[in-house]
Amino acid sequence: MASKVVPARGMRDVLPVEKARREHALHVIRAVYRSFGFDEVETPALEDLSRMESGQGGENEKMLFKVLRRGLAADEPVLPADAADLALRFDLTVPLSRYVASNAGALRMPFKALQIGPVWRAERPQKGRYRQFVQCDIDILGEAGSLAEVELVTATHTALTRLGLTGTTLRLNDRGVLTGLLTGCGFAEADHGSVLITVDKNDKVGLDGVLAELRSKGFGEEPVGALEKALTDLLPLRDVARLGDGALPDAVPAASITRLQEIAAAVAIAAPDLDVQFDVTLVRGMGYYTGPIFEMSLPGGGSSIAGGGRYDGMVGRFTGRDVPAAGFSIGFERIIDEVSLPADAAPAVALVHPAGVEAGELLRKQRELQAGGARVVLVRQAKRMQPLFDALVTEGYSQVVRARVEEGRLTFSDPSPLTAG
Amino acid sequence: MASKVVPARGMRDVLPVEKARREHALHVIRAVYRSFGFDEVETPALEDLSRMESGQGGENEKMLFKVLRRGLAADEPVLPADAADLALRFDLTVPLSRYVASNAGALRMPFKALQIGPVWRAERPQKGRYRQFVQCDIDILGEAGSLAEVELVTATHTALTRLGLTGTTLRLNDRGVLTGLLTGCGFAEADHGSVLITVDKNDKVGLDGVLAELRSKGFGEEPVGALEKALTDLLPLRDVARLGDGALPDAVPAASITRLQEIAAAVAIAAPDLDVQFDVTLVRGMGYYTGPIFEMSLPGGGSSIAGGGRYDGMVGRFTGRDVPAAGFSIGFERIIDEVSLPADAAPAVALVHPAGVEAGELLRKQRELQAGGARVVLVRQAKRMQPLFDALVTEGYSQVVRARVEEGRLTFSDPSPLTAG
Repeated sequence: MASKVVPARGMRDVLPVEKARREHALHVIRAVYRSFGFDEVETPALEDLSRMESGQGGENEKMLFKVLRRGLAADEPVLPADAADLALRFDLTVPLSRYVASNAGALRMPFKALQIGPVWRAERPQKGRYRQFVQCDIDILGEAGSLAEVELVTATHTALTRLGLTGTTLRLNDRGVLTGLLTGCGFAEADHGSVLITVDKNDKVGLDGVLAELRSKGFGEEPVGALEKALTDLLPLRDVARLGDGALPDAVPAASITRLQEIAAAVAIAAPDLDVQFDVTLVRGMGYYTGPIFEMSLPGGGSSIAGGGRYDGMVGRFTGRDVPAAGFSIGFERIIDEVSLPADAAPAVALVHPAGVEAGELLRKQRELQAGGARVVLVRQAKRMQPLFDALVTEGYSQVVRARVEEGRLTFSDPSPLTAG
Repeated sequence: MASKVVPARGMRDVLPVEKARREHALHVIRAVYRSFGFDEVETPALEDLSRMESGQGGENEKMLFKVLRRGLAADEPVLPADAADLALRFDLTVPLSRYVASNAGALRMPFKALQIGPVWRAERPQKGRYRQFVQCDIDILGEAGSLAEVELVTATHTALTRLGLTGTTLRLNDRGVLTGLLTGCGFAEADHGSVLITVDKNDKVGLDGVLAELRSKGFGEEPVGALEKALTDLLPLRDVARLGDGALPDAVPAASITRLQEIAAAVAIAAPDLDVQFDVTLVRGMGYYTGPIFEMSLPGGGSSIAGGGRYDGMVGRFTGRDVPAAGFSIGFERIIDEVSLPADAAPAVALVHPAGVEAGELLRKQRELQAGGARVVLVRQAKRMQPLFDALVTEGYSQVVRARVEEGRLTFSDPSPLTAG
C-alpha cells in the first residue's frame, strides 16, 4: 500500500460540487464583464524571474515559487540565486502590465481588460488560505478620467449582483486624501508608508489601537495627536458629497476631492442600489496606487470582497511611456462560498442500468433524455441503491429512469422522482 | 526605454479575439460533458516532484518545470537534484490518478471525471507549439466493461459536433491486438515497445518506411517479413465487424476482438454519424494503455484531434487497489483554430462619447442598451474614428450609438450600423 497520497503542501483539490459552482460563477462574471465591453486576455502562468522581482509586488515578491533552470549540470552545485530563471506569477496586475507592453500595437485604446486565472504565493499554509488561488481582475488602460473608475465599479457591482451578492457597500478613498491628511498632521513624507500600514488596521484594532501602534513606532505626540483629532472628526464622515466645505485638511488637493465626488455622483446614477461611502481609513496595501482606491464589502460590514484603484505609473515602468490605468479585482475565493449553483433548467436524470447491458441502446436512451438540455448520468445497478441516490440528490439529480432487460430486450421505465433516503 | 518586453521563452499571450473563442469552446465542452454526467474536478498546477518523476509520464518526465525549494540558504550551493521539491504537471492523467487516491472516500463510483486545465512541458520551442497548453480530459474510473469506452467516445463526439467539428472519424485498435500480432510474427516480447514505436510512424513514412526502420534497428528478416505480410493484409481492413473469422493472427486474444466489436456496434447505435474504422497501425505513445485505444480525426484524414484508451493499472500504483480506468483527451490546441465564435445573440453596440462627459448618464445609457444581453462598449470620440470602427467590427460590434452634449445635456443618437472602412 502506498503512503498517504495528498496534494502538495498548501495546495488543494476542488471536488465536483464546488467546481460546478466555481465554473458557474466564472461564466456569469465573464458574461457580465463582456457585456460592458471588457476583453478577456490570458497571460502565461510563468514569467521571467527578473520581472517578478522588479519591486512592483511588495511583500508578494518574497513569496515567489521560482522555477529551476533547465539543463543544469547534475553534478555541479549552484547558488539558489543562480538556480532559477522563471517564477509563477503572484498576481495578475504585473503580468497585465507586461502584456500591454508586449502587445501595445494590437490593442485598441482605452484597453478594457478582463483577466481570470490562478496565481501562486508561497504563504505559510493556514486554514482556508491556499498557495494557489484564483484572481479575477478588470483593468482600464488609457483612460485618465473618472469614467474609468465608474465603469470598473458599475461593471463589478453588476457582476456581483448577477451572482446573487446584493446589498454591497463601496468604500471609497483617495491616495491624495491620505497623503494630504498625513502632511496636514505633520508626518514627514518618508514616514507616510509606515503610518498608512498602521492606519490600515483601523477596522481590526480601532482608533485607540492605531494610535497606540503609532506611538510604539516612535512617532511624536504632535502628529499623532493631530491625526487623532482628524480621524475622530473624519471616521463618522461617510457622505462623499460632504467632503468639500473644509471637512478635510487644507493639504488635501482639491482635485482628489473633486474626483471622489465625480465618482460617487456618477455611481449613484449608474448603479443606484450600490451604497457608496467615504472611508478615511481605507488604505489598500499595494504601494502602486496613485489616486482613488475602493473596496466592496457584503452587507453587515463583512470583509472586503473586491478591491482596486488607480495605478497610473506601472505600465510606464515597462514601456517608458506612461499609460493611465485603474483596476478592480474580485476576491474570487472570498465570494465563492456565497454563490449558489442555479437548479438545472431541465430535470437531471439518473439512468440506472444492470451491469453488462448492451451499451448502444443504453446510450441512445441517454441521448434521447438529454434532449432539451437535461443532464443524464448512467448509474450501474447496485445491491444498495440508496447511498448512491443520496449522493445523486446532492449533485442535483431529481429523476430516475430504470433500464431492465426483458426477454433479451432493454426496456426503460418512465421517469420518477429521485429522493434522498 | 525598457528593453523588448516579451513573454517568457516558449510561452505566449492569448489576445482577446482568440481568448473569446477559447472560452466559448470550453463552455460548450463543459456543457456537453456535464450533460453526460461527467463531474468536473480541479487539481493544483503543482504536484510533489517525486510523484511527477514516478515513471508514469515517459518522455514527459524529462520536460518538467521544477520548482525551487523555499527557504534555501542564499549562500549555500546546492546540487540541482536537491534544489527542487515541486513540479508543474505535464499532463492531467497522473494528477487525476493522485486525485482519485486522495479523495477516494468522497467519490461516487464509477467516477466520471472532467478535467480541463493548463499543463507545462519544457519542450524545445517550435512554431505553433508552446510550453504551456490546455488539455481537456474525460475519464471513467471503476467501469471495467466496454460501456466506459462507448460513453467516452459518444460524449466526445457530441462535444466536437456541438463545436461544429463534424464528419470526424474514430480509429480504433487494441493493445491486445498489437501484442498478439507481434507475438504471432515472432517478435520477442521485450522488443514489442521498440517495434511499436516504429509501427506508429506508418501514417508518416508508410509501410516501406516502417519495414526499413525495423531492419535498420536490426530485427531479423523472419519476423519483419511476417509483419510485412500481416500488415499488407490488415492495412486495408477498416471494418471492425470483419475482425473475427481468422482475419487476425491466432495469437490475438479473442477477448480483444470481442471488445472492439462491442464498442463499434454500440457506437454505431449511440453516435450513428461517427465513422468508426479499425486501424492496425494505431499505437498511441503512452505505455500505460492496457486495452482498447482510439483516436478521432477531422475529415480528410487530418491529424488526430482527440485520443485515449484504457489504462487499468495506473490508479492502483498510487493506492495499491486496482481501479479499471479509461480516458479520452481532446487536443484543445489542435481544434481551437477550427472553432468559430457564434455571432452575438443581441447586437453588440459601440457607444461613442466625447471625452469628459458626465459618466453617470453615459453608463445609465450603457446599461439600458445592455438589456437583453447586448454587449455595449464605451468608445471615446477620436479625430479619426474609422481605424477604431475597423477594430470594433473585427471584435464583433455591429451598431454604433453616438452621445453628444447639447445645451449642457447628454443626448444619444439612435443605433446605426457600424461598418468597416
